[in-house]
Amino acid sequence: MTSLDSATNAPKPSARELPDVSQLVVGVLGGTGDQGRGLALRLARAGQQVIIGSRDAARAEASAAELGDGALGVRGADNATVARESDVVIVAVPWDGHAATLSALREELAGKIVVDCVNPLGFDKQGAYALKPEEGSAAQQAAALLPDSRVTAAFHHLSAVLLQDESVERIDTDVLVLGEERAATDIVQALAERIPGMRGVFAGRLRNAHQVEGLVANLISVNRRYKAHAGLRITDV
Amino acid sequence: MTSLDSATNAPKPSARELPDVSQLVVGVLGGTGDQGRGLALRLARAGQQVIIGSRDAARAEASAAELGDGALGVRGADNATVARESDVVIVAVPWDGHAATLSALREELAGKIVVDCVNPLGFDKQGAYALKPEEGSAAQQAAALLPDSRVTAAFHHLSAVLLQDESVERIDTDVLVLGEERAATDIVQALAERIPGMRGVFAGRLRNAHQVEGLVANLISVNRRYKAHAGLRITDV
Repeated sequence: MTSLDSATNAPKPSARELPDVSQLVVGVLGGTGDQGRGLALRLARAGQQVIIGSRDAARAEASAAELGDGALGVRGADNATVARESDVVIVAVPWDGHAATLSALREELAGKIVVDCVNPLGFDKQGAYALKPEEGSAAQQAAALLPDSRVTAAFHHLSAVLLQDESVERIDTDVLVLGEERAATDIVQALAERIPGMRGVFAGRLRNAHQVEGLVANLISVNRRYKAHAGLRITDV
Repeated sequence: MTSLDSATNAPKPSARELPDVSQLVVGVLGGTGDQGRGLALRLARAGQQVIIGSRDAARAEASAAELGDGALGVRGADNATVARESDVVIVAVPWDGHAATLSALREELAGKIVVDCVNPLGFDKQGAYALKPEEGSAAQQAAALLPDSRVTAAFHHLSAVLLQDESVERIDTDVLVLGEERAATDIVQALAERIPGMRGVFAGRLRNAHQVEGLVANLISVNRRYKAHAGLRITDV
């Protein structure tokens, strides 16, 4: 999409080779939570067809109807329906429901691109800290539970506050995208780049997902110290 | 720390309250390695008094004499001397020598601000991956081995190539600074901000150092994919 001629305009780093994802249906498991609802809003505003998932279909439908005052055409459904009807499925459930949710959807998610954006964190009086899942990371747990899916990890560092604030037009941040398969990570990068201000940056294999997930604990510390909604940019790409 | 009035001018987030560190002597253990030499060069160019340390004093002296064609006044000495004569000691040794080097310097480093910038990484055919030290992170290992020192962690994500390239005037990146004690992390932030283009950003306690150290594996993946010398910026601070 970006020719070499325009390279001096700081192009999105991977824009040239990224696929057109505008026709893909995106499902959001845990779409009634802050992160999931925020991502659904942003993707729908960008013109993506979005389905919000929840264990409770009625709750998902209500949440979908609220987004953009119902003008965005977001649908809601139970998680299994969302998994079945989506091309790309974003996993935005709480960490403590992560394994159970994915285990139950193994068949529905077969062949789909799964985008794990779950951050396993603990909290105590000193703030947040990274948990270390047995599999190494939430994304690796997803890959272990979903052997027939194309598991990636992305969208970890977005401020749910900014995502959900409808007055915010652009979210200037990079989305680190991890995965084993180039075709899948390219699609996820392209999806991130549908949202104004965001770039999708490939940042390694799933075995390096733990530190990307855990870094949210650091961003929470940044937010506390600086009263910010911190995000990340990767320089020199 | 940023008042509402000045927030629109995007100041260095912590600049107003950071201490003057221009008179502090900075030692660099492992200062003959790429990262250490690069940091020594940048700090000396910023006017800081710098001593390079190595197990071998002659090697440290030779390395110091080369920096800035000898015009920067950088000294070299054995590690113990460097630790004793410095106010702030940057630990830039290879991970496999980390514990042994610090254990041997416990007395010399007592009362000093120690800045660990070591990234425990493994490498194989698929690239780099984060190692998980028994203590949680290199920084926590340092804290465990140096109970009488003021241990912080910082300078993990700097490109040694850029640091050492004398034609590069500015390095536009944020330095994440971690530690338990505000006075110490403030000093390290201030030290980072002596280098043109760098900001020091407080990013949590040492228990959250692992993911900051490990993120270098991801930046290595970024560098491979985009042929870059990737660094980090924190947005909204």
